[in-house]
Amino acid sequence: MNKRKDKVITMGEIMLRLTPPDYAKIDQAHSFLANYGGGEANVAVSLSHLGHNCFFLTKLPPNDLGDAALAHLKKNGIDTSYIVRGSSTLGTYFLETGFGGRPGKVIYNRKHSAATRMSPSDFDYDKIFKDATWFHLSGITLALSSKAREAAIEALKYAKKYNVKVSFDFNYRSRLWTVEEAQKWYPLVMPYVNVLFASPWDFRKILQFNKSDDDVELMNKAVEDYHIDYIFGKTRHIISATEQEMQAYVYGNCKEFKPTHWFKFQIFDRIGAGDAFASGVIHYLIKDYHATREAAEFGLANSILKQTIFGDVSTFSEKEVEEYIATQGITEVKR
Amino acid sequence: MNKRKDKVITMGEIMLRLTPPDYAKIDQAHSFLANYGGGEANVAVSLSHLGHNCFFLTKLPPNDLGDAALAHLKKNGIDTSYIVRGSSTLGTYFLETGFGGRPGKVIYNRKHSAATRMSPSDFDYDKIFKDATWFHLSGITLALSSKAREAAIEALKYAKKYNVKVSFDFNYRSRLWTVEEAQKWYPLVMPYVNVLFASPWDFRKILQFNKSDDDVELMNKAVEDYHIDYIFGKTRHIISATEQEMQAYVYGNCKEFKPTHWFKFQIFDRIGAGDAFASGVIHYLIKDYHATREAAEFGLANSILKQTIFGDVSTFSEKEVEEYIATQGITEVKR
Amino acid sequence: MNKRKDKVITMGEIMLRLTPPDYAKIDQAHSFLANYGGGEANVAVSLSHLGHNCFFLTKLPPNDLGDAALAHLKKNGIDTSYIVRGSSTLGTYFLETGFGGRPGKVIYNRKHSAATRMSPSDFDYDKIFKDATWFHLSGITLALSSKAREAAIEALKYAKKYNVKVSFDFNYRSRLWTVEEAQKWYPLVMPYVNVLFASPWDFRKILQFNKSDDDVELMNKAVEDYHIDYIFGKTRHIISATEQEMQAYVYGNCKEFKPTHWFKFQIFDRIGAGDAFASGVIHYLIKDYHATREAAEFGLANSILKQTIFGDVSTFSEKEVEEYIATQGITEVKR
Amino acid sequence: MNKRKDKVITMGEIMLRLTPPDYAKIDQAHSFLANYGGGEANVAVSLSHLGHNCFFLTKLPPNDLGDAALAHLKKNGIDTSYIVRGSSTLGTYFLETGFGGRPGKVIYNRKHSAATRMSPSDFDYDKIFKDATWFHLSGITLALSSKAREAAIEALKYAKKYNVKVSFDFNYRSRLWTVEEAQKWYPLVMPYVNVLFASPWDFRKILQFNKSDDDVELMNKAVEDYHIDYIFGKTRHIISATEQEMQAYVYGNCKEFKPTHWFKFQIFDRIGAGDAFASGVIHYLIKDYHATREAAEFGLANSILKQTIFGDVSTFSEKEVEEYIATQGITEVKR
Amino acid sequence: MNKRKDKVITMGEIMLRLTPPDYAKIDQAHSFLANYGGGEANVAVSLSHLGHNCFFLTKLPPNDLGDAALAHLKKNGIDTSYIVRGSSTLGTYFLETGFGGRPGKVIYNRKHSAATRMSPSDFDYDKIFKDATWFHLSGITLALSSKAREAAIEALKYAKKYNVKVSFDFNYRSRLWTVEEAQKWYPLVMPYVNVLFASPWDFRKILQFNKSDDDVELMNKAVEDYHIDYIFGKTRHIISATEQEMQAYVYGNCKEFKPTHWFKFQIFDRIGAGDAFASGVIHYLIKDYHATREAAEFGLANSILKQTIFGDVSTFSEKEVEEYIATQGITEVKR
Amino acid sequence: MNKRKDKVITMGEIMLRLTPPDYAKIDQAHSFLANYGGGEANVAVSLSHLGHNCFFLTKLPPNDLGDAALAHLKKNGIDTSYIVRGSSTLGTYFLETGFGGRPGKVIYNRKHSAATRMSPSDFDYDKIFKDATWFHLSGITLALSSKAREAAIEALKYAKKYNVKVSFDFNYRSRLWTVEEAQKWYPLVMPYVNVLFASPWDFRKILQFNKSDDDVELMNKAVEDYHIDYIFGKTRHIISATEQEMQAYVYGNCKEFKPTHWFKFQIFDRIGAGDAFASGVIHYLIKDYHATREAAEFGLANSILKQTIFGDVSTFSEKEVEEYIATQGITEVKR
Repeated sequence: MNKRKDKVITMGEIMLRLTPPDYAKIDQAHSFLANYGGGEANVAVSLSHLGHNCFFLTKLPPNDLGDAALAHLKKNGIDTSYIVRGSSTLGTYFLETGFGGRPGKVIYNRKHSAATRMSPSDFDYDKIFKDATWFHLSGITLALSSKAREAAIEALKYAKKYNVKVSFDFNYRSRLWTVEEAQKWYPLVMPYVNVLFASPWDFRKILQFNKSDDDVELMNKAVEDYHIDYIFGKTRHIISATEQEMQAYVYGNCKEFKPTHWFKFQIFDRIGAGDAFASGVIHYLIKDYHATREAAEFGLANSILKQTIFGDVSTFSEKEVEEYIATQGITEVKR
Repeated sequence: MNKRKDKVITMGEIMLRLTPPDYAKIDQAHSFLANYGGGEANVAVSLSHLGHNCFFLTKLPPNDLGDAALAHLKKNGIDTSYIVRGSSTLGTYFLETGFGGRPGKVIYNRKHSAATRMSPSDFDYDKIFKDATWFHLSGITLALSSKAREAAIEALKYAKKYNVKVSFDFNYRSRLWTVEEAQKWYPLVMPYVNVLFASPWDFRKILQFNKSDDDVELMNKAVEDYHIDYIFGKTRHIISATEQEMQAYVYGNCKEFKPTHWFKFQIFDRIGAGDAFASGVIHYLIKDYHATREAAEFGLANSILKQTIFGDVSTFSEKEVEEYIATQGITEVKR
Repeated sequence: MNKRKDKVITMGEIMLRLTPPDYAKIDQAHSFLANYGGGEANVAVSLSHLGHNCFFLTKLPPNDLGDAALAHLKKNGIDTSYIVRGSSTLGTYFLETGFGGRPGKVIYNRKHSAATRMSPSDFDYDKIFKDATWFHLSGITLALSSKAREAAIEALKYAKKYNVKVSFDFNYRSRLWTVEEAQKWYPLVMPYVNVLFASPWDFRKILQFNKSDDDVELMNKAVEDYHIDYIFGKTRHIISATEQEMQAYVYGNCKEFKPTHWFKFQIFDRIGAGDAFASGVIHYLIKDYHATREAAEFGLANSILKQTIFGDVSTFSEKEVEEYIATQGITEVKR
Repeated sequence: MNKRKDKVITMGEIMLRLTPPDYAKIDQAHSFLANYGGGEANVAVSLSHLGHNCFFLTKLPPNDLGDAALAHLKKNGIDTSYIVRGSSTLGTYFLETGFGGRPGKVIYNRKHSAATRMSPSDFDYDKIFKDATWFHLSGITLALSSKAREAAIEALKYAKKYNVKVSFDFNYRSRLWTVEEAQKWYPLVMPYVNVLFASPWDFRKILQFNKSDDDVELMNKAVEDYHIDYIFGKTRHIISATEQEMQAYVYGNCKEFKPTHWFKFQIFDRIGAGDAFASGVIHYLIKDYHATREAAEFGLANSILKQTIFGDVSTFSEKEVEEYIATQGITEVKR
Repeated sequence: MNKRKDKVITMGEIMLRLTPPDYAKIDQAHSFLANYGGGEANVAVSLSHLGHNCFFLTKLPPNDLGDAALAHLKKNGIDTSYIVRGSSTLGTYFLETGFGGRPGKVIYNRKHSAATRMSPSDFDYDKIFKDATWFHLSGITLALSSKAREAAIEALKYAKKYNVKVSFDFNYRSRLWTVEEAQKWYPLVMPYVNVLFASPWDFRKILQFNKSDDDVELMNKAVEDYHIDYIFGKTRHIISATEQEMQAYVYGNCKEFKPTHWFKFQIFDRIGAGDAFASGVIHYLIKDYHATREAAEFGLANSILKQTIFGDVSTFSEKEVEEYIATQGITEVKR
Repeated sequence: MNKRKDKVITMGEIMLRLTPPDYAKIDQAHSFLANYGGGEANVAVSLSHLGHNCFFLTKLPPNDLGDAALAHLKKNGIDTSYIVRGSSTLGTYFLETGFGGRPGKVIYNRKHSAATRMSPSDFDYDKIFKDATWFHLSGITLALSSKAREAAIEALKYAKKYNVKVSFDFNYRSRLWTVEEAQKWYPLVMPYVNVLFASPWDFRKILQFNKSDDDVELMNKAVEDYHIDYIFGKTRHIISATEQEMQAYVYGNCKEFKPTHWFKFQIFDRIGAGDAFASGVIHYLIKDYHATREAAEFGLANSILKQTIFGDVSTFSEKEVEEYIATQGITEVKR
């Protein structure tokens, strides 16, 4: 795998995820599987496996759990040299994997994590952004703390300064803040965004667009209002916790609405599906900024593959994603 | 969870279940997963999680396996103070979990268990039943031994004496006794029953009703003959060992036949489905003795949820069962 | 299980298979499940469970891994007294189990294994074949090495000499040799074959039959050209890595094409499906050499059951396979 | 096991402990074993297994982790009816088990737990203490938060009011607060204490006794100054993380210093050793308040047995502890 | 491994053993490790690995657990063709592995097993014994049931008839019968015995020898009274459940008492130590009936090696046992 | 951890190690634990954790196992940019962990690995060595193949050219080549070496020094003959597979023999002990090239700590090693 000559930056929190094995409920668990993940970190990891030079910005506690999170990033080829160590706690979350008619469940324990303590003074933004290609952020980082929010907005400013493409994923999390709180901050991010990952719900609820507009109208209005190049999104039909259908779409500056067809797929681990989608899209746009339809499809395929493996991250190569697009998984074991 | 002010009694055997992990066959197994369960014990556990004060009557051996069975009951909130310790062996059974076209398998090792040694003299029936709300029994306890049968019938008498509602689940087990043996004892139980869990097969085979009657006619006749308030049951369409459909129904004193619609669902662990159904029905009837249709639906939902988790028991709360009824599992992970 | 009075010989390689647990990818694995298998060895094991006296011919290294492979064969009732010990390495392979849209993957490490070192001088062919009933071989053994190839062809000659029925499974493996190499050797095997397991692809590619012929024409021509009694095969519709459909067919000396109906089934472990099919067919033909349709169906059922359990081998009894044919898995847990 | 007629109260925090299996380091762990424990909760559990009626006072979050902690207590026979549910986080800690020359390690994540939110208004002290026999507290609860401290001191007052015997274990934790902070609060507890678990270090550092006094002099002075009935303690010789020696001692109102002999023992899980010691001592004193030498020995034996099993708690019965005292583990498997 | 030309018969019960992993107590266990073992079966397995042709006589239930026990025997090279299938239950036992000062524990569930149903009519004694070399039995089989006892004594008679050497291991089990019951049956076995495995305790308690005789005197008297060739035994110093010392001894017809030196060793799994000792002794005596001192040492080494591995059986080869005797384990990993 | 400004190069093979869990024998194993390691790779990993910038030179196959080995190196902070991908097989080895009197065992499967295919043309030696600080090599790489040997000797030449310090560890492996073969190549390496890891045995056997010389004489002669700065080594007293003693020593240009005292320690995983020793010594010498006694002690401590954790590598920091030297493991869990 020869790395491209680009430099992709993402910023946010990486947490320890604790998952009861074998579809056990949290209150049945005698042990928890451990892996590491978090929205923007997952995007960096997938883009690294797709051949990009990725850097992750965060604050990690100077203890063994911080070391383990760091090792996860390194193992996946992330350059961790901008990460700061400090504060005392690694954010953790418990994931109960759903089965059939029983939905999954998440319990967060991240309110006082080291990542919530990151602040603008932790990062040398000029050094980080001056030769960067792309910057990706999500609404989760905005929700972490006011300091983290400042650090993120500072990053957006430097991205602008150095003409770095910016993608932003709404990723609204009701367990982290209320819609009312979110409504104050998302609008401030919009002016910096080139590529947006969002749904009509996000515009209606968080950006308070007119609720009665039809979806296409609404999304096209959003593109125009915020001078966004593209909005990508995906729709999910839930058949059960283990079988679902997805479709991706893109709205762009020529007002075109391009949905992919519906994919039916089986889910081994649902977490990180959105991050893998964003990663796939970003990867394709870095290759060809105008191939939006292909980007949507590549993102969707990356997302579906992600959901066939344990953990928060897609570690599939470009070739593997392309094979999936070509075969949709209808292939034999190769011997 | 605030417990209700009621007192629910169930009586029977609790066994150690040994299950090869990862869908292994028994003869492939290098280890067995351990959990504890048994028809009436499972009903007590589910009713405890649905907010009732539950007591279980049984005999457990005075060794570590008996202690472990006791701990399972305590952990699930069962009051174990009426349980007697004695004899020497905990019943065990081996469960081979089916997969796809390969059906599950059970090997019993319970013929000489402590529970088969329980007898009327083990229990202070007056104390147990004088302030009780509900008593639940199943045909399994009748099949254990003549002494256990006596203990069960004595319990039915005291339930009658203290005006306690009685539910009975046919649960005929061909591995424990023959139809001919069963035919002698089930009729003796009928006069005590308010709520019955049974299928047309049970009436035709065990109670020797006219085989050619159509199901509805037959069930209504049963209700009349035995002065039963309601008969509840469920029908199962087996697609494979891991995917099935179920429908619940109720026959009652106004001769009405009320089936629920068919639910398609995925099975993680099939054992205890009937007990969870009975628990759900009993819970709803304790709340509202006339809401039979809702009781059938609640029982069915509890049964389906049970089958999404490992073990013999449903540990779902009323709120979780209601959420399933509302969404039928079509929900996202909440974050 | 009373063994029949026959003597079935198979010859080939048995390997250690290393499988990441819980659908993990190879590069995620912290441990590997260990089991033993290989085409012809698997056929011997299944036929042993179907009641035949089976002998396996191979070379195993004189170390603990060789001992473990031997123990696997013994445990499954194979007579291992013709197996030679020598050379130094047991063939191994890594299997990544596919999930949903992600296909399975195999990495071989068998190029220099002890089995590739077996040669005609390792076996006392007269003793082995003089009272034998059936000999089964597959294309994998041809691909191992030139010495192994010689040992296999010698075996075919002795089978002929002693009038032993010969079955051969094409089993072309692109990871072991090229089509061009294969094209030299398969034709040499054909004259010895009574029962062949092959697909139209095999005839077109490996035996270089006319590509434009329609399948039935082609297969009938093959039967005629090589004086083969029957050709058996199966067709697979891949829905996903975990759900598929299969149909079996047989071509025979009366030019009849007899397909079974399509079976839809769930896959727990796909490896060994072809070997279980061959085993089921051979078993039935040993019982009744003319019941080809029943043989195809029995083979298919054995193959489907195999795919519901972990490992390379079917360990189902004749009774279990027949129960599957009768119910197609639509049965309740028996209690 | 017939429960005694007493009522033992303990108060504090119960946490989820996460332990890498098989002596792995935290940064090597792919999974964590889960169990529940905490100083005063552990004392309640051991006393329950020794035959006492135990109640635990704490605040648990209303989520699945809180439920699991509750189930742990119930399973071990604790009466949980005084426990309040509220706040949002269960305290957790990571334990790296030491091996040989590599010492164990703890990472806490408990600073903002539900237990730190408990306050005097959460408990109906009159109801709790009016018929109680014994109250046990440790310095850990003082360190949780100012509110928890208030709740604890209120409990001490009510214990006094209702003439309940009070035991207190210093359990100073440097990861929770500084010596300086501790120095303010421990003195306030002393007037309520009947039985103290403490070392000379505790008196010199936390209660600021004269550092140059010899240990016996110092401890006797402490007994006198604070009108304490007995001070119990144990000394540990560390040979390695897995092999150690311990001795227990008691100082009492007749100024006698009674050490047990040294026990050499092997350690499977070191956590909870002090709590098991306290439990054993308290158990013996409840039986016979004057048998201090026997109490010290019983406590030590309970502590050593605890260290042979996984988890934070001793679940040994009185009989098992007595057998250990009699044999010191020099016994054969009984068959 | 070339098998010798001998034929060794052993007779008894083989059970499923269920062991909590990782030194857990039975009441802590969420799973149990599964292996198969039983006194005389273990002797057959070890002798098979030492190069002998071994046959085991028992009755196994015709279910998957019986199949698994059979597979265990086959895997270890035992000829299972004399084993009968019948009755319904495989004996099981639960083993709690001791640690340090906490001794191991056994719970039996074997009272009604298939093995207790074996009877003289199950075996074709003439066929079995007419060409046999050695027959080994232990007191456990006598304790199973009166029918099993008859079958065993019949076997002894045929061994005598065909001049087969007989070894007998006292193996008195207090959980199976009382000393009083045992006293009736052991004397009947003595006249058939050539080689006895017993301790002075056995003679004093079971055979009611004079209790005040000194050990050497007593053992020599026993040799004389019963016309036994040799009595072998071992003495165990228990340091802890995991560290012990053993010494073997032999008494023979020249009244010589030959003890080996004391071996200090670490225990991974204590079960089967006595069977491995007997196996080692028998192996050596088959090679050289007069080399009693070497036999004692070889038996002891085999016993110590057994205790370093999981399960009931020693699977060590003659070479491995000899290497242990030569080095006593003081060797480096060979690379 | 701030990395130093140095550049450390090591060269060799990294393999997949497969270890039966829980002290199982290879032929008992149902699964194998997976980790990655190899002499020089282990040195790079430990030096990375001790704060150095480490680069590893090898050839890895372009498949998932190669990716996993690479991820292991990256995770541990190794710069992998000089590693070449090619050939087809990752070397593997099976490790049976010894217990008590049963020694460990290794089965190699590495003869045809990708690492044996590395050759001088795979590396840009000028770029690699021009700014390097230290180069470490061991005899294992010499034994891989003639091409690997050439690549290694080329590396030594470039190290010389750029004045890079060279350390060499004899690491003679009898499973890879004979003493006779080794005797040809080790002498060619000597002229390049500054720091040597070797024992008197190595000089007598491989370099054919006079066998009768006493050790000190011999080692001092070796220092002189080859113009080596220091020879480091360690001596091991084997008590059992799990308990041992070690002592380190150094011979230097002032002819001084400086042994450390003997350390008694417990072994969790013996593999990599020598590599951790070399790493510790090299680390200290990079800090202070004259502090040989401290280097020996630091190496020994690093080696002992390594043996308390699973896997081939020491991941301890300088601080952790220093703490061990200060306390020798006699410390409490810090809470």
